[in-house]
Amino acid sequence: MRDVAIVGIGQTPVGELWNQSLRHLGHDAIHAAMADAGIETADALYVGNMLSGELSGQEHLATLIADFTGLRGIEAAKIEAACASGAAAMRVGVLAVASGMADTVIVTGVEKMTDTLPAETTAGLAMAADQDYEAAEGATFVALNAMIMRRYMYEYGVTKVDFAPFPIIAHENALGNPNAMFHLKLTPERYEKAPAVAPPINIMDSSPICDGAAAVVLMPYEQAREFGRGKRLVRVAASVSATDTLAVHDRHDPLWLEAAYISSHKAYTLAGVTPNDIDFFELHDAFSIMAALSLEASGFAPRGKALELAASGALARDGRLPINTMGGLKARGHPVGATGVYQIVEAVMQLRGEAGANQLDHAHIAMTQNIGGSGATILTHILIGES
Amino acid sequence: MRDVAIVGIGQTPVGELWNQSLRHLGHDAIHAAMADAGIETADALYVGNMLSGELSGQEHLATLIADFTGLRGIEAAKIEAACASGAAAMRVGVLAVASGMADTVIVTGVEKMTDTLPAETTAGLAMAADQDYEAAEGATFVALNAMIMRRYMYEYGVTKVDFAPFPIIAHENALGNPNAMFHLKLTPERYEKAPAVAPPINIMDSSPICDGAAAVVLMPYEQAREFGRGKRLVRVAASVSATDTLAVHDRHDPLWLEAAYISSHKAYTLAGVTPNDIDFFELHDAFSIMAALSLEASGFAPRGKALELAASGALARDGRLPINTMGGLKARGHPVGATGVYQIVEAVMQLRGEAGANQLDHAHIAMTQNIGGSGATILTHILIGES
Repeated sequence: MRDVAIVGIGQTPVGELWNQSLRHLGHDAIHAAMADAGIETADALYVGNMLSGELSGQEHLATLIADFTGLRGIEAAKIEAACASGAAAMRVGVLAVASGMADTVIVTGVEKMTDTLPAETTAGLAMAADQDYEAAEGATFVALNAMIMRRYMYEYGVTKVDFAPFPIIAHENALGNPNAMFHLKLTPERYEKAPAVAPPINIMDSSPICDGAAAVVLMPYEQAREFGRGKRLVRVAASVSATDTLAVHDRHDPLWLEAAYISSHKAYTLAGVTPNDIDFFELHDAFSIMAALSLEASGFAPRGKALELAASGALARDGRLPINTMGGLKARGHPVGATGVYQIVEAVMQLRGEAGANQLDHAHIAMTQNIGGSGATILTHILIGES
Repeated sequence: MRDVAIVGIGQTPVGELWNQSLRHLGHDAIHAAMADAGIETADALYVGNMLSGELSGQEHLATLIADFTGLRGIEAAKIEAACASGAAAMRVGVLAVASGMADTVIVTGVEKMTDTLPAETTAGLAMAADQDYEAAEGATFVALNAMIMRRYMYEYGVTKVDFAPFPIIAHENALGNPNAMFHLKLTPERYEKAPAVAPPINIMDSSPICDGAAAVVLMPYEQAREFGRGKRLVRVAASVSATDTLAVHDRHDPLWLEAAYISSHKAYTLAGVTPNDIDFFELHDAFSIMAALSLEASGFAPRGKALELAASGALARDGRLPINTMGGLKARGHPVGATGVYQIVEAVMQLRGEAGANQLDHAHIAMTQNIGGSGATILTHILIGES
């Protein structure tokens, strides 16, 4: 098994990008990553995407993007795992390089969600849930998360306003990210008064519908060291995927993300680290409740205590475990199949010391976690920067 | 890099399976493969599927099937490459085992195409083509193939009836396959009189819309040898994917499948064989014209000569290069995302000597080729049976 390095990163701004289709978004992110890596071609392209068929009428997406990007001929496939599609594509890229079957691999995540009516996009997103036993009963994605959040409040005796630190941190960090969708400072008052989406979830608990693409270039670590061009190398120390029941009602405990527990703890073992060693954590705050559950299952807070951790200031950029340092899903935006790759691109920026206004003082070991569905598929990556 | 073995195979019958949804089909094929391999769990599940979102309103399919199949917790992802999704999932399974990151991997291909109106299914299939520049102009998938077939007839001075051997061989071979969709003997007269779909393509040139699932279990070859339980081991000697332009009109030559050329010739090199060494070839006869182009690009016939090869009898079960020994896409059926895995399952049956009435006398080295779109994504696998 070969160690894998990330040698190039690229991204588009996140937003309502009506003048760009899937192929243009993929093209822009990939070319930025290729330029950053200093490569002109690759052996394979893996594309993370959830909704190209439903919302753009286009399958066969990876080959389309390879063709449009000038990579005609190379291996290409689309990888889908709902909102975790981006990290799932990253995982396949890691497999390809680790196996020795490919030396240079491009992974991109791309999603286009704003060219359809909101009801169509919402119906598309509901395909991440169990169509026959959740969606067919009228449960949208936000409704499922709202029920989990309400249960959390009941079990642990917390109130809605206790979740405020998550979106406040996200929006604070997005202020320094020019690619983020939102640049607005969120106050506790504004959070409390935000319009409800599915109570107790309000619009400030919810990541936005948006478009975007991000990309990375992978190479064998040893080869990347020789190839190095002055940029700090980043090693993929762990790449792990785990699953849980698709339907929330099938879980023994809806407040426990078993797939986050499995994937994070396997990742710690593979990387030879403990949660204490993680310098910052790009987590999946599609809804505020998911940020809390992710922290608890990954070993950063005892059960029911994630909100205390958030209130303590530990998760801000100057805290001991900064999260979502470029704005997270809430404020950078959540183009679903692209998010997992955005998380990795942003982690690499921090590890390289290229995070600009948001650069952390100490960024050597990063963790990213991408969640598909209401916790049904969860991938954890640990990335280590060269000292 | 570790060598990879196929240690289990399973399949459902192919047909209009109205009483089974995607999860049931996947479950049945996977459990058959697991029983065949003698395993009770696995490290990962990769699902080849093209149309679950469009036709069943269900994404996040791999996790759903893992959950429903009793594999809760394991890594899972859906792989999409249009009609080549099945082989693309196989490729990811091979990467996972070869890398050393997984020891036991299940690959399944599953598709459900008959629960929707024919127009909806046709629109879904058109998503394999370029939505903005082919489908939006009204070109369905069969229309694109019809134009290629007509061009072939013009360039090489052949007539429609010269294509008859392909479906005749497929239907002949399906007679001995209990899982095939069709069990009818096709005569040249019946072929000539078949109703037109998109001239010159008639219904006997066209693979059917249908449902089905197939699955394989992969393990490291060395481990499988120790683990062996009396079945002949099959080694994956080559697993290669290549692409071409998505749109047919972008090709320099619409009669040349560059992605078949690249993937087959890389596969020959990796496996250390030549086309002469291939004992039988499971090829992608979604339409008769694709069978001809596949044979030519893969080095089995000079350009324009595939129909002569077919007319010579060489492609029948007693010929020197039997094709589609269990009925191919035309007569076994073509549940699109499942087809690539059916091809591999059937090849393993031959290599193991388990092909029943259709068993070849000499089956030691097999090749399978799965085509996505009108030749845009093509995967070639070479499988070698233990002597």
